[in-house]
Parts: sequence; C-alpha cells; structure tokens
Amino acid sequence: MNHSELFGNVKNKRSFLCVGLDSEIEKIPSFLLKEKDPVFQFNKRIIDATHKYAIAYKPNVAFYECYGSKGWTTLESTVKYIKENYHEIFVIADAKRGDIGNTSKMYAKSFLENMPFDAITVAPYMGEDSVTPFLSYNDKWVVLLALTSNTGADDFQYHNEDGIRLFERVLSVSQKWGSINNMMYVVGATRAEMLKEIRRIVPDHFLLVPGVGAQGGSLEEVAKYGMNSKCGLLVNSSRSIIFADSSEHFDRVAGEKAHEMQIEMERYLSEKSLI
Amino acid sequence: MNHSELFGNVKNKRSFLCVGLDSEIEKIPSFLLKEKDPVFQFNKRIIDATHKYAIAYKPNVAFYECYGSKGWTTLESTVKYIKENYHEIFVIADAKRGDIGNTSKMYAKSFLENMPFDAITVAPYMGEDSVTPFLSYNDKWVVLLALTSNTGADDFQYHNEDGIRLFERVLSVSQKWGSINNMMYVVGATRAEMLKEIRRIVPDHFLLVPGVGAQGGSLEEVAKYGMNSKCGLLVNSSRSIIFADSSEHFDRVAGEKAHEMQIEMERYLSEKSLI
Repeated sequence: MNHSELFGNVKNKRSFLCVGLDSEIEKIPSFLLKEKDPVFQFNKRIIDATHKYAIAYKPNVAFYECYGSKGWTTLESTVKYIKENYHEIFVIADAKRGDIGNTSKMYAKSFLENMPFDAITVAPYMGEDSVTPFLSYNDKWVVLLALTSNTGADDFQYHNEDGIRLFERVLSVSQKWGSINNMMYVVGATRAEMLKEIRRIVPDHFLLVPGVGAQGGSLEEVAKYGMNSKCGLLVNSSRSIIFADSSEHFDRVAGEKAHEMQIEMERYLSEKSLI
Repeated sequence: MNHSELFGNVKNKRSFLCVGLDSEIEKIPSFLLKEKDPVFQFNKRIIDATHKYAIAYKPNVAFYECYGSKGWTTLESTVKYIKENYHEIFVIADAKRGDIGNTSKMYAKSFLENMPFDAITVAPYMGEDSVTPFLSYNDKWVVLLALTSNTGADDFQYHNEDGIRLFERVLSVSQKWGSINNMMYVVGATRAEMLKEIRRIVPDHFLLVPGVGAQGGSLEEVAKYGMNSKCGLLVNSSRSIIFADSSEHFDRVAGEKAHEMQIEMERYLSEKSLI
C-alpha cells in the first residue's frame, strides 16, 4: 500500500482509526477462555465488529510474545485473518524492533515477509543501518518512534543540541532514508501540542498517534494540530475500544465505540474539506 | 545472579567471554538440516563445546523470531538447555525491547519469567518507564544500549547537549533506575577508545561489549580501556566462533576458537592481577 492508497482508504471509510489489538489474555471476556485459542477468537470478533470503522489494526507484539510459541501462532493467525478477509486494511506490527543491519534484516523478514504485515514500528536509537533493512520491501512501511506517549519520553527525546531536540533530529535525519510512501512516525497524542512543530519538519508524512483514550490524549487536539491535506494521521485506540465491555456482547460494544470515534473523525475530515 | 557472583564466574573460568548464538539456519552446517530442530541441535553442540571457556551466552532473538512459532520453540529449548546443564552460565536475551510501561512488563514476563533468561537487552529511547519493568525481578538484569557497534550509532547517539552526548546521558540518567547488581550497558568494541570516557561515568558496572571478531573490534583495546577492578566486561563474539567451521567437526573448531579467546582473556585478567 502506498501513501495515496492509504489516503484513499481514509476517504472511503471517512475514518483514520487504527484499532490496537493489545489483547491481554487476563483482560478478555472469561467465557472465551474455553476456546482453543482464546486471544485469536477475541481478535477475530473484535475485527469483524470494528473493520467498517477502522483503516488499520495494530497488534502490539509484546502481548503475543509473552505466551511464547503459542502466542506467536496467535499473532500469525490474527494478521492472516485480517489480510484474507479485509484486504484493504493496513496492519502494523507494533514491535519496536531495531538492531545492527544483518539482524534488522531478520526482523524485517519475520514481520514483512513471513507474516503479511504492512508495517512495523522501529526504534531509532541505533540509526540508519538499523532501520533501512525494513525499507527494502515494496509497499511496506517503517513506523519510526519519534515522540512517544509515555512519561519516559522526557528522559532522552528532548535532549537538545543547538535548539534541535532528539526527536526532531530523528524526524529530519530519517526522512532521507525513505519517502512518504514507506515511512511514518510515532507521535504520542499526549504530546498533541507538539504536532504543530512536528508538522514543520514532516509536513507530508503519515503520523501514527497512540495515546488517545486510556492514556488521556485528545482526538480533537490531534486532528487540529496534526492533520494535513491528505489527512496524514492514523490515530490508535486500543483499550477503550477492545476492552469496553466484558460480556458476551463485547464485540458489539467495541463496534459501537469504534463507530463513535469514526463519527468524530468524519467531522474533522469534513471540517478540513478532505471528504 | 548478582555482580559479585558474576565476577566469581569470571575468576573461576579465567574468562569474560560471551558467545553470541546468532544461529542463522542458512549458515549452520548443512548436515544438521535433517534434524527435527536443526538450530537447537547446532546450539546444543556449540554450547557443549564452548561452555568451559564462556561465562555467558547471548542468543539474538531476531534469528529465532524469523521462524515464527517454531523459532520461538528453538529459543525456549536453547535457554532451557543451558540453564539445566550449565546453571552457572549467564544467559542474555539480545532482544532490544522497550515500550510503554504496561507493555514492557509483558516483554519482561516473556524473557525473565516464562523463559529462564538472566538478562535482556533494552533500547533506551522511550526512557525510564520503558526500562524499569525489566528491573522488578530479583537477580535479573537489564543490559541497556548505550553506544552500539554499528555505523548508525553516529546518527543519534552522539547528539550533544552542553557537552553531554546522548549515550553519556543514557549512562548517567539510567544509573538511577537500577544498581550494579541489575544493570549493565552495551558498548560496542568498534568504539573501544570511548571506553575510557565511559568508565568515568560508569566505573563499576559490567559492560556487554559486542563487535569483537567479524565486526572488527579489538579484544586487547577493549580490555585496556574497559576493564575495572572486578573485570566489568562481558565480551561477545558470535560469528567468528560459531561459524568458524562448517564440517561435522564444527563444534570442536568452535571450542578451539572459544579457547583461544579465553587464553587471551586470561592474560588480560592476569595482567590486571584479577586472577
């Protein structure tokens, strides 16, 4: 998928919602635990109920990896299920990988070749040769960490050399490694006011924005400061959609929550005359 | 394992060698491919042949993860095999993980609880709350990236605020999160001359030093600039030991290579009067 196809999906669905599949087994409805692969059954029902309102899904790999080889099978089944049933959906492996070149190549193979993910989140600390192996696949994307949504973002991301903070340096330096068709950036919704400054450095790239919902970020502010002429936003919401209800109707409630967000997103897209 | 037990192992084995189990299936001897789990059989024979000379092993998770759930089983079998047969060995998951707090907690569970690793490498970009969940286990360690061995290290790690480079800030800030009993740092052997400056910031911590061998770093320089009064070094070598030979005697040759390194290490320990 390239940049204009992604924007096409935004316009079709009148949404820029990414649903985070942080599907902790301790938090899924207990009646699912009798299933052979409870987390996959949970994901399947969440996906079926929310896909009309979402243009992307983002399983965080930690929540699968912690169940070892079984969890890995669940992750594989989930991404395969999305791609086979809803092929227009953009699927991001939230893996935050990054290593020396020959090792990053292995991580890229894992997520972008062996599994049909469209994108993977990558940590920038190790620099260019740790990121570029992920950029060697056609129509696949790197989502590079820039300014994250957690409190620890203050520790290093604001480290300031001659007025240029580390996250700004990450944005400007890394732009040369790819294009708007294969790179986007993580910018936390809890730092929405920074989106204005970030848009000066990366006016055209898509930004993946986590932190709306349970982490306290505001969708309105994100749209106000971050939206560009091709939308340029994927806003992730996880816990406030997927764990909105724990009854046997959890999927219907998740669908309603996703629909509420889509309606709000449609308003912002409309206000910007993008739909 | 704590700091003094680790130093005890260094003295007993007269070695500070860590063997990197970057066991790419394409590079292991082809006669092993008929085995049910070729990479595990390879690792088992490498471990049996080198354990006398090594105080640590470090599988890089990328080389397992790229085979999905099967690869994950191989990783689980490998760490279990080491701990059951050579319980004094320190085993590091080279995973370079790091995410927001509740997610890092899942990664910590995966490597330090579900699998019996002693330590995990962690990327510092997301700051304190992305690292501390890994520090909540008794006798388990975080190995935090500071100055890496790859060329991309130049992109961000030298970003300089008032004379303090990012990797120096990582070293000084993160020291407050743990102690010399549960934190060490990655410093690439290809940057051996920097070890002198790094020792001013972290005089007492163990450093995990990759990059000797195939990547071109010098063991002599690492020992000269990096060794402290409790050794304070784990020097990793991977490809130049594990892929030294591809015949059916690959394990014997790997053992000889590891022995050569141990002999050189013994000399440096002896010159410093540590043994």
